[in-house]
Amino acid sequence: MARVRNILVGQSGGPTAAINASLAGVMDASRELGLRPIGMRYGIKGLLDGRTVDLSSNLPGKLELELLRHTPASYLGSCRYKLPDPEKDDRPYRQLFDEFNRLGVGYVLYIGGNDSMDTIARLSSYGESQGSDVRFVGVPKTIDNDLLGCDHTPGYGSAAKFVATATAEIQRDSDVYDLSSVTFVEIMGRDAGWLAAASTLAGSAGGPSPDVVLLPEVSFDERKLLDRISNLLERQNTVIVAVSEGLRAPDGKLLCERASSGVGTDEFGHLAQLSGTGRYLAALTRERIGCKTRCVELSTLQRCASTTASAVDLSESRSLGAAGVLAATDSQSGVMVALERTSTTPYQTRLVSVDVTKVADKVRRVPRHWITPDGMGLTRDFELYARPLVRGEDRPAMVDGVPQFIAPLRG
Amino acid sequence: MARVRNILVGQSGGPTAAINASLAGVMDASRELGLRPIGMRYGIKGLLDGRTVDLSSNLPGKLELELLRHTPASYLGSCRYKLPDPEKDDRPYRQLFDEFNRLGVGYVLYIGGNDSMDTIARLSSYGESQGSDVRFVGVPKTIDNDLLGCDHTPGYGSAAKFVATATAEIQRDSDVYDLSSVTFVEIMGRDAGWLAAASTLAGSAGGPSPDVVLLPEVSFDERKLLDRISNLLERQNTVIVAVSEGLRAPDGKLLCERASSGVGTDEFGHLAQLSGTGRYLAALTRERIGCKTRCVELSTLQRCASTTASAVDLSESRSLGAAGVLAATDSQSGVMVALERTSTTPYQTRLVSVDVTKVADKVRRVPRHWITPDGMGLTRDFELYARPLVRGEDRPAMVDGVPQFIAPLRG
Repeated sequence: MARVRNILVGQSGGPTAAINASLAGVMDASRELGLRPIGMRYGIKGLLDGRTVDLSSNLPGKLELELLRHTPASYLGSCRYKLPDPEKDDRPYRQLFDEFNRLGVGYVLYIGGNDSMDTIARLSSYGESQGSDVRFVGVPKTIDNDLLGCDHTPGYGSAAKFVATATAEIQRDSDVYDLSSVTFVEIMGRDAGWLAAASTLAGSAGGPSPDVVLLPEVSFDERKLLDRISNLLERQNTVIVAVSEGLRAPDGKLLCERASSGVGTDEFGHLAQLSGTGRYLAALTRERIGCKTRCVELSTLQRCASTTASAVDLSESRSLGAAGVLAATDSQSGVMVALERTSTTPYQTRLVSVDVTKVADKVRRVPRHWITPDGMGLTRDFELYARPLVRGEDRPAMVDGVPQFIAPLRG
Repeated sequence: MARVRNILVGQSGGPTAAINASLAGVMDASRELGLRPIGMRYGIKGLLDGRTVDLSSNLPGKLELELLRHTPASYLGSCRYKLPDPEKDDRPYRQLFDEFNRLGVGYVLYIGGNDSMDTIARLSSYGESQGSDVRFVGVPKTIDNDLLGCDHTPGYGSAAKFVATATAEIQRDSDVYDLSSVTFVEIMGRDAGWLAAASTLAGSAGGPSPDVVLLPEVSFDERKLLDRISNLLERQNTVIVAVSEGLRAPDGKLLCERASSGVGTDEFGHLAQLSGTGRYLAALTRERIGCKTRCVELSTLQRCASTTASAVDLSESRSLGAAGVLAATDSQSGVMVALERTSTTPYQTRLVSVDVTKVADKVRRVPRHWITPDGMGLTRDFELYARPLVRGEDRPAMVDGVPQFIAPLRG
């Protein structure tokens, strides 16, 4: 007879449209294996305050999982918390392992990005040093697609699909008047340009791709951008520039910092958080070229839009959640479950486990050879890579004209 | 035998997700009646430059109309142009009627908002004074829903559905961390709060409505807002405030102007366009209450999001386009076709024609009795009014993961 043991699952880092699909996958496999799923409220930080929820009673059936997997953001709540070096301070570790013990937990799953994989690495290593048999497995999640050790991350496909869709729509919106204008679309991604690159997938929506794409991987060349825009405006009314919020000047400084220092502090004495990269470039272009410019920040909707979720992404995210449970019950620990691509045409992947220390605190950037030589566009190789990830629709149930989500957890 | 005559159609004002559905309706009825449809490129302004396109060849069949009706913004291009008083300057009128003559046009349809209805009023009146038999009919369009003479305007339902959906998503995104925060969602609407009011339709998406809604119809009371937010934060982590960009202080000044004057000019010497109403309120609340605040501007996507189009809106928009053709061929002129609501439960409307001079240059605001007595919410009557307008999904065909639009007009 299989030992019935409890499984503890947490979510960490920023919200995505797919993180709850991974939680649904954890629920699938837990039920299949007769494990009792317990949720950390607000991640490891909430757990340190003893905050857990019984997931069997909150998510009792298939209808709840269907609502859950379409609900954006973190159902369990999240945190941004970094465990200290246990050599210097082992108190949180002792407290957490006491908590695992008290809860009768044999498996801990943490759904998140870089920092969450660091948490898994530290807990696994600490547990090993203490002879604990609790297993620790990471399930990847980040719209930024910047984790090493995997082909791509859950959450990226849906965010990329939103970015491509919004870019196609903004392009039509920008082209209605008979005058020269430049529209900057500011896209998330502080260290890696994967999401800004996804704007080029707009290309098949009955119009051209964005004319220019600026990524953090290539340092910003003001002269080259203004020359390109001027040239484009000689033969077309409207220029669309997709720009990563993390764009940097040749001196390594973020463009948005440069913008802020120009504008100064706001009336309350804070550094104005008014001027992002896109706004800065719009002001610069208006000044130097003299045409109408504007900036559209895609903002929060990039990570929480539910109606443009990618079917491939939601399906893979759910599979990875279940795979995390299987890895843990297979006695793996200190690993992240991940997707490895075995073929692009046709698109095929397989589930693998990777050593989490090879992932934690590292950043994977867009390879330079997927960026055009001029640094202002993406190559066909990028499209081959990214296109399969945005394919397929998987939308939430609509009730009374709006998407239906799972009721929020209380307490 | 019916005389075959040409029909000229133009689009004017800001883009919406439904204006091309009205153009598809014009095509439907034109074909039905054997009329030859000609498009004004960039509205009346383009027509003054002699710019027209043959619509039969650009939109030859049903597939093109299907792509067209899901394509946001103005397929024909748009303008913001106000005809002068003909008593003072009748040159554009003479030029336009020469153009109608040259093109063999018997009917002119103009799809747009307030200003477009003014254009219809002036052309119709001038034509009458000259004994012209050209008929002029307006087809309403504006996301702002601020036209008199109709129950609601085409474009509003889809924009309202986007606003409600985005508000529900942002609400989930805002509630992931265990800390006090206030999120301001800035929504379009300079003179009327119909769109900001639509944020309350988020209420059925598995969570509460926004906690506070601020409309231009009610002058802003800083003390009351801060008190309300403080009270809410005593019992919940997250407060969502939906705010109309057109919010005004008691002195009648736009809040966003106040914000700009505080921040001053940008580094290029322009008045910083950085600080909208929502950003101002976020800075104010951070300063006075001391909690985390942020502002999400729904921006351009409100008017061009295609994947959250309302089925009711797209269907009504198409019907109104066709109704415009029927009104014109029925010899009506100087009218706007419109929807009159005959019943709310069940939702039913009928098509009517209204004297365009009763619509032009006027603004319809949210009635005070649909706003709660405290001025920070909407009553049940508003929901009864607005809910039917956002019901039903009607999404563009998706190809390769992105919406498919009609190819842009060239030339």
